Amino acid sequence: MHKFDLDTPALVIDWDIMQRNICAMQQVADDAGVKLRPHTKTHKTPLISHLQMRAGAKGITVAKLGEAEVMNAGGVDDILIAFPLQGAPKMERLLYLAERANVRVSLDSRQVAQDISDAAHARGAKIGMYVEVDVGLGRVGTMHHEGARDLVREIVELPGVEFLGIMTHAGHTYKAKSLEEIRQIGKEEGEWMVETAELIRADGIEVREVSVGSTPTARFSANVKGVTEIRPGTYVFYDTTQVLKYACSWDDCAQTILATVVAKHPDRLIFDAGSKTLSSDAAPNGLFGTVKNFPNLEIWRLNEEHATVRIAGEGPLPNIGDKVEIIPNHACAVMNLHDSFVAVSQDQVIGEFEIQARGKIR
Amino acid sequence: MHKFDLDTPALVIDWDIMQRNICAMQQVADDAGVKLRPHTKTHKTPLISHLQMRAGAKGITVAKLGEAEVMNAGGVDDILIAFPLQGAPKMERLLYLAERANVRVSLDSRQVAQDISDAAHARGAKIGMYVEVDVGLGRVGTMHHEGARDLVREIVELPGVEFLGIMTHAGHTYKAKSLEEIRQIGKEEGEWMVETAELIRADGIEVREVSVGSTPTARFSANVKGVTEIRPGTYVFYDTTQVLKYACSWDDCAQTILATVVAKHPDRLIFDAGSKTLSSDAAPNGLFGTVKNFPNLEIWRLNEEHATVRIAGEGPLPNIGDKVEIIPNHACAVMNLHDSFVAVSQDQVIGEFEIQARGKIR
Repeated sequence: MHKFDLDTPALVIDWDIMQRNICAMQQVADDAGVKLRPHTKTHKTPLISHLQMRAGAKGITVAKLGEAEVMNAGGVDDILIAFPLQGAPKMERLLYLAERANVRVSLDSRQVAQDISDAAHARGAKIGMYVEVDVGLGRVGTMHHEGARDLVREIVELPGVEFLGIMTHAGHTYKAKSLEEIRQIGKEEGEWMVETAELIRADGIEVREVSVGSTPTARFSANVKGVTEIRPGTYVFYDTTQVLKYACSWDDCAQTILATVVAKHPDRLIFDAGSKTLSSDAAPNGLFGTVKNFPNLEIWRLNEEHATVRIAGEGPLPNIGDKVEIIPNHACAVMNLHDSFVAVSQDQVIGEFEIQARGKIR
Repeated sequence: MHKFDLDTPALVIDWDIMQRNICAMQQVADDAGVKLRPHTKTHKTPLISHLQMRAGAKGITVAKLGEAEVMNAGGVDDILIAFPLQGAPKMERLLYLAERANVRVSLDSRQVAQDISDAAHARGAKIGMYVEVDVGLGRVGTMHHEGARDLVREIVELPGVEFLGIMTHAGHTYKAKSLEEIRQIGKEEGEWMVETAELIRADGIEVREVSVGSTPTARFSANVKGVTEIRPGTYVFYDTTQVLKYACSWDDCAQTILATVVAKHPDRLIFDAGSKTLSSDAAPNGLFGTVKNFPNLEIWRLNEEHATVRIAGEGPLPNIGDKVEIIPNHACAVMNLHDSFVAVSQDQVIGEFEIQARGKIR
């Protein structure tokens, strides 16, 4: 079946482009001599984690315990939950998961460490732990250098946790305005983390992992001596934002939304794909996705079910009933909206797969 | 079980507030002598449609065929699909649905009418149809007055469709800056539609329905003489945007997200509810939701799993592990992100319900 015969809107993954992206990022890690632990929030699908590990990844990163459970049920057993877990129900689930898998968590406070330690110690268990460090995003994370060192000093004493290392996410790179700026952020991300690790080691504490890496910065931070692990996620599919942030070219974008033109007026077209399909996440260009093969069409407004598309130049226009392909702004958000995706190779449908960790917010 | 004992993030609906909202909007319709056909995109749940109909609603509105199928499977049999349907797979589904339910559709082009008519006529069926009219949103819809009249002239001749009336959605009201402006948009919405209906009737064509109404404008457009039906949706829960657009007060907001504080730094808190839980949809105040009981906390940035909250004034602060309640910006988008919601009365859990039409984008 040709992909254009699918009913719309449909989430389509080009399997060949995805496989190429997986191999290329593995090569970045291998060339730098670091481990690749991809963030699976982008695909939310155990099958794709297995493809990443077959290519050489040493484990995976997830954001939620619920994602970890799905990935483990799908056969993945080395999982970093990169989020500060809180609350008794999550402690129970974490300890049960840790019986079946090599699970590590991240955190930035004594209290979260204490709660996990208390729960684990009562069960005779020990949970591996990264301290999350803020290198500029201003979200979760202790301030690097002394901030991280001070927290590590406190938590190494706790009986139910094992301090493994430090991690950061340089998400502020998405504000960068040039490739040079991204290179600089990636380099600093690595260097500041290595310096922080050295400060912790000066206390006689072992720091096994120095873990960094967003998709745009991974290739720069991976090459800083002392970094041990990178955790990019979006590279598996890429998206409009990644192209505009110099992380890839349009030809590297593996994820598209197939949509149909449902209305046509002198100044605008309407596609049957809105924010429920493409997400409301904005790209640096202010538009809501990129229409392939129609550079004269701009998606300038989304409602839940409608894309309102303005005609921004000369050129052919699709008609009512015609299908168009859209490269979304934010691949991860799109996967979270859909129950399944269609895989294609050479434009032919080769499979339909459930997005098993979609909606796993707890 | 008290709602604060739920694991987080959790989507919570206050059942008493919701019931009050349902009754209040029904009263608006009854007082004006018009039918209420609520848009169910907000709740996506057949149970709540039944509550709306028990209160007096005459049918429902949906945006997608997939939503119509779920609602019909849940026992609802009077359904307007307010979207121009396109493509052979949808024609098959529409005709099968029309055998089980009173289904009507909307459209703004001869081509969509022709395609539906062809499919229905071949099956010996007739599909009821509204012509969608643009009164200012600039999305789907013919221009009112002559634009609508000319299209109606064309489609009344088609054998497989039955022209029932005209409809509009004055979504541009969300750009309004005052209650007076919203009142004006609502009044114009009704008046322009009634004038359009008169122009169509001048051709000797019956116009049974003149259907209008967003949540902010419904109470104004309902009272224009000649309007027959209103289709508000968000009123069932309301949200931060509706409060800021004068449609309700904070006490009318029935939907909240229960979240936990997972990190605390001198200038910020982090909640475990991000764009996967609250949606990325912005409110007029530029924030990403309203924190109940903490007027000094502002959700100024969302990532997929994190809300970054700045401390914008004096006052008590929650601690790591504490739970907070957030009134989302956009109730409909939030329902689409969650697999289920928890219903509470007097803060006690009284049920957990699947959001059955979530993700039904086709």
